[in-house]
Amino acid sequence: MHVVVNAATSADGKLSSRRREQIPISGDADFTRVDRLRADSDAVVVGVGTVLADDPHLTVKEEALIDERRDRGEPAHPARVVVDSRARTPTDAAVLDDAATTYVCTSERATIDDRMDLADRAELVTAGDDRVDLLRAFATLQAQGLERIMVEGGGELIFSLFEDGLVDELRVFVGPTVIGGRDAPTLADGEGFVADFPTLELESLERVGEGALLTWRTANG
Amino acid sequence: MHVVVNAATSADGKLSSRRREQIPISGDADFTRVDRLRADSDAVVVGVGTVLADDPHLTVKEEALIDERRDRGEPAHPARVVVDSRARTPTDAAVLDDAATTYVCTSERATIDDRMDLADRAELVTAGDDRVDLLRAFATLQAQGLERIMVEGGGELIFSLFEDGLVDELRVFVGPTVIGGRDAPTLADGEGFVADFPTLELESLERVGEGALLTWRTANG
Ligand SMILES: NC(=O)c1ccc[n+]([C@@H]2O[C@H](COP(=O)([O-])OP(=O)(O)OC[C@H]3O[C@@H](n4cnc5c(N)ncnc54)[C@H](OP(=O)(O)O)[C@@H]3O)[C@@H](O)[C@H]2O)c1
Ligand SMILES: NC(=O)c1ccc[n+]([C@@H]2O[C@H](COP(=O)([O-])OP(=O)(O)OC[C@H]3O[C@@H](n4cnc5c(N)ncnc54)[C@H](OP(=O)(O)O)[C@@H]3O)[C@@H](O)[C@H]2O)c1
Repeated sequence: MHVVVNAATSADGKLSSRRREQIPISGDADFTRVDRLRADSDAVVVGVGTVLADDPHLTVKEEALIDERRDRGEPAHPARVVVDSRARTPTDAAVLDDAATTYVCTSERATIDDRMDLADRAELVTAGDDRVDLLRAFATLQAQGLERIMVEGGGELIFSLFEDGLVDELRVFVGPTVIGGRDAPTLADGEGFVADFPTLELESLERVGEGALLTWRTANG
Repeated sequence: MHVVVNAATSADGKLSSRRREQIPISGDADFTRVDRLRADSDAVVVGVGTVLADDPHLTVKEEALIDERRDRGEPAHPARVVVDSRARTPTDAAVLDDAATTYVCTSERATIDDRMDLADRAELVTAGDDRVDLLRAFATLQAQGLERIMVEGGGELIFSLFEDGLVDELRVFVGPTVIGGRDAPTLADGEGFVADFPTLELESLERVGEGALLTWRTANG
């Protein structure tokens, strides 16, 4: 399994404003790059916070990329995965439409009723007592043949993945804007590290559109 | 007046951990760059949060740079400026030693007693009723002949400077580490913008040491 975390931040490291509304950080050039990365993945993963805030569809947009996937014998779109301990994903969420297979990873905290609501729209994976146990959930995805994993946020999920040593690559598009705010979501939220900070290696650095794309590798990657 | 904000962040946009302890984010290569930028400035500005957390000295370290300053008829070190509404700068703070002139910018909220304690160690500037009125404080610095201003953080001060339209350039060294934490200080904290986000222009992008240096210009800059 190879896990790439991809996100767009403001120049000050925010994923969105304190209102948690989606902010246009990147432009067309980065959009094309992200679409290609999705097309090269077996699964696209987000936290339920992102589903609730942005209601993303997480499908490949460019027809030519969809055709290439079909030519390779792959489904039109990568699988979609929501990390959602309590099964809070709304039944009308865009990720639950029939464009692609969707996995909802829950923990033992999700009630049977909430799971039932999702059961005919998604494959349910249960891992962990309280929050989703990411190592176990990802092992289940791998057992389904999902090897190339792209994570699209948000900051709570990204932090946990670093905590669990599950990140191979981190790609950050840094956009030409300042969002600010001590309560705005950042690229890596959660509790935060206070020692033994994960170290990265800067693989590449390039201008993309009006911003910068930084590609980092972890010790795993 | 020309204002350059310079800071080092982790790959996820943090200035330090949630414990607000100084974290080694940059290495020798960036240290040399920052020392040169200080040597090319008339004043180095920080918020009192940074003084309380890190107790920085803010002087030029490299002897050759100090000599160059002297050759130009400048004082050995740039002036140091602390933005400190309530005059909380400790009297034994490193910025108050006699290596360079220090300005402490307070507001009307600072008691006479607290000001008295600082009065023989620093030049006091009073601007604003509650927090320091940065526009007025900077106008006072300019009237003292301080034209080339370098701001070294932290995130609360940097946000306010963007809010007041006082930033010409933003230089961010992004280091090869992840700090994480929803409560860790970021490059721009404060209330945060929710609309009319300041836009930047990416002037340059280069590898420095193990990290990346991004130089942004604002509409003023
Ligand atoms: N700019 C970008 O590239 C980008 C990308 C994505 C999102 N965003 C923004 O980011 C914000 C949402 O991010 P977020 O950080 O609030 O949410 P998130 O990371 O998408 O989701 C976090 C939620 O996932 C659930 N979860 C379950 N197990 C977890 C585990 N082991 N570790 C971490 N989380 C776990 C938790 O809720 P439960 O406990 O209920 O399960 C947690 O609150 C929105 O404002 C969105 O616009 C921006
Ligand atoms: N990595 C780096 O490059 C770097 C650089 C600097 C700092 N840091 C880190 O950043 C942290 C400190 O940052 P911080 O954000 O807490 O503090 P800060 O920005 O250094 O100082 C903020 C304080 O300045 C005072 N202030 C007065 N007028 C203000 C105004 N108009 N706008 C904003 N602030 C005003 C306020 O205190 P009063 O109301 O009492 O006046 C405020 O709490 C520390 O953890 C430090 O290690 C890192």
